[in-house]
Amino acid sequence: MEAYSIFKDLAILVIAAKFFGLVARKCKAPQVVGEIIAGLLIGPGVLGLVSQSPFIAQMAEIGVVLLMFSAGLGTNLKDLLKTGPIAFLIACFGVFVPLGLGALFYFCYYGFSPFGSPEFYKGIFIGTIMTATSVSITVSALKEMGKLQTKVGQTILSAAIIDDVIGIMVLTFVIGLKDPAMKPLIVVVQSLLFFVFSLVFGFISYKIFKKVDKRYPHTQRIPIAGLAYCFALSYIAEHYFGIADITGAYFAGIILCNIKDSDYIAEKMDINSYMLFGPIFFASIGLKTDLGDMTLPLLGFSIGFVLVALLSKIIGCGLMSGLCRFGFWDSLKIGVGMMTRGEVALIVAQKGLSAGLIEPIYFTSVILLIIVSSVSTPILLKILFKKSDNLPQKT
Amino acid sequence: MEAYSIFKDLAILVIAAKFFGLVARKCKAPQVVGEIIAGLLIGPGVLGLVSQSPFIAQMAEIGVVLLMFSAGLGTNLKDLLKTGPIAFLIACFGVFVPLGLGALFYFCYYGFSPFGSPEFYKGIFIGTIMTATSVSITVSALKEMGKLQTKVGQTILSAAIIDDVIGIMVLTFVIGLKDPAMKPLIVVVQSLLFFVFSLVFGFISYKIFKKVDKRYPHTQRIPIAGLAYCFALSYIAEHYFGIADITGAYFAGIILCNIKDSDYIAEKMDINSYMLFGPIFFASIGLKTDLGDMTLPLLGFSIGFVLVALLSKIIGCGLMSGLCRFGFWDSLKIGVGMMTRGEVALIVAQKGLSAGLIEPIYFTSVILLIIVSSVSTPILLKILFKKSDNLPQKT
Repeated sequence: MEAYSIFKDLAILVIAAKFFGLVARKCKAPQVVGEIIAGLLIGPGVLGLVSQSPFIAQMAEIGVVLLMFSAGLGTNLKDLLKTGPIAFLIACFGVFVPLGLGALFYFCYYGFSPFGSPEFYKGIFIGTIMTATSVSITVSALKEMGKLQTKVGQTILSAAIIDDVIGIMVLTFVIGLKDPAMKPLIVVVQSLLFFVFSLVFGFISYKIFKKVDKRYPHTQRIPIAGLAYCFALSYIAEHYFGIADITGAYFAGIILCNIKDSDYIAEKMDINSYMLFGPIFFASIGLKTDLGDMTLPLLGFSIGFVLVALLSKIIGCGLMSGLCRFGFWDSLKIGVGMMTRGEVALIVAQKGLSAGLIEPIYFTSVILLIIVSSVSTPILLKILFKKSDNLPQKT
Repeated sequence: MEAYSIFKDLAILVIAAKFFGLVARKCKAPQVVGEIIAGLLIGPGVLGLVSQSPFIAQMAEIGVVLLMFSAGLGTNLKDLLKTGPIAFLIACFGVFVPLGLGALFYFCYYGFSPFGSPEFYKGIFIGTIMTATSVSITVSALKEMGKLQTKVGQTILSAAIIDDVIGIMVLTFVIGLKDPAMKPLIVVVQSLLFFVFSLVFGFISYKIFKKVDKRYPHTQRIPIAGLAYCFALSYIAEHYFGIADITGAYFAGIILCNIKDSDYIAEKMDINSYMLFGPIFFASIGLKTDLGDMTLPLLGFSIGFVLVALLSKIIGCGLMSGLCRFGFWDSLKIGVGMMTRGEVALIVAQKGLSAGLIEPIYFTSVILLIIVSSVSTPILLKILFKKSDNLPQKT
């Protein structure tokens, strides 16, 4: 492939994503929905103008990392610490309810299997795919509505981050059940080590950034160093601790959210995001989808899979939110906000595939889940926030 | 390769490029020199932290295209038309003097060969590699010094663009001498067609952009559409007309340089450039270099090759500039500004390799030429501009 040929893909992706983004906004739907639909339309399933390539996948990865970094930069650290314990409880329910209901659904659809049989592990794994919330679309939708800094927004964000960590632990645990080489304890220890590392390394780098920022405020070097720092922490998280790179990027943002120029960094990041990386990330979700190899039994399974995945998150997270004294509407918002799945679900499915736990055919169900949740979550959130904004406040 | 592993390379590239860029600036040298040296240091030749990958090559390609688009956006169209005919003459001399002297040098070093023999074509091809000026580094250096909008700056820019087109014609002609499938006339016709296409398509798109810009001034959609337009023209130029993608990007910039928001587009592009794509482009030049496989005869050849390549451009372009009534210092500046070689020289060498005209060993000479010219041009230009700024003006 010649180097210049990427420009065709990039031109089509950027223009289609932004065009459908604008159309979506005109229809009062969030822009990201339009961008995902754009990817679906120009992708191999419909028009076939652009197909998923390693380059686009890597650009999309940068896109999601920038998005999470920007979300981290906008965090109010005090609020996060306040929402932390509750978010932890919500995340636990958000992982284990879908895990249980997902496995149960598989057994109901295909029949129960004895403990320890390959079919049994497959059922458990179908549940595992349902665990990981992909918060990026919710963050983007909340940001668009200006609700990211609300208590509900911050709770969703924190819960999704914790959920991600628990989800990865569950994944390694389930794979470890089959493979004696993987030790679940090691994963737990690694995750704890990453938190300790983030605390220590984060504190030191925060001090350095604060000093440099004080000496050279509002210069190019602050956002550039911030960007490199975000990339570095993304890499370190995944390479050394087995934590998703987006979690590393989010932590990088949180570490820098209290320096004076954090808004300045975020502003520069956002330009990079909305110009190029963001549209590519969202369009690439649609791009991955080819609805051509769908059979009727698989369609039935997929529809059930999607419904169970969405409802189990709403039930799990919503229930715990209610127990944590959120009102009915806010609990519903948290449940709905947590139900988006994204690239993490695909990565989980990929890992299950390479461990021999599931077949490639289930990817279609996962992609359907990603699309349905990505399209419905922002729309539902918009409706819910509008509804509750119109309700009489009882603060 | 896992998707996250790019973040290590990106973090190291961005931080090293910017750090050495700052060091270079402190040493009163242009920032790009520091960025190239950063690539050399972190590359396989020295520290081996990052190696050239398809992803980095594609990011670098985006970097050079954005740079040329930005240069086009900053063009004063009236000035370009004024400098056009003179630039054409300078470009002609800038192509044919290096072509002749380069071939002559090869024959002097390795002995003369009869017309039509493989060694003869090899000599001609060594000359051909010397023809294409890579203006991006000069543009970047002139921009840094604030001299891009001067008459000298505009002449260099226009001449380099025309030089590129003539250089590609020469390349296709030389390859065509060996391969009967390639028709030189077709190349000439293709290039003319591209100019006609740019005029017609450019005029229509200019009108559309102007209208949209008037209706939605200063909105996100203007720079995003501009970016997509730049990518599209880069692709069309190379895919349909065989013209380098950077020429297409430059034309896209020129077409949009007269709309009201051209500065606004350029500003957004520049943020993308300086944050990520620019540093990666310049560092990747250094990255490509491995000085390990150098032998003494090849070293001798390479040194001669570099000297002839640099001097022949200064002589060719400088002489014609003098004939076109530029003063001595300005002629020297134009000659020096035209002597940078970059990715185009590598592409030419690559094409000669696949046509069986040269051996891979000559790549080291080409890379040495790129590094020496990229490092020396900005330094010399800075000295020359400083010198002439201090001279008594005789306007």
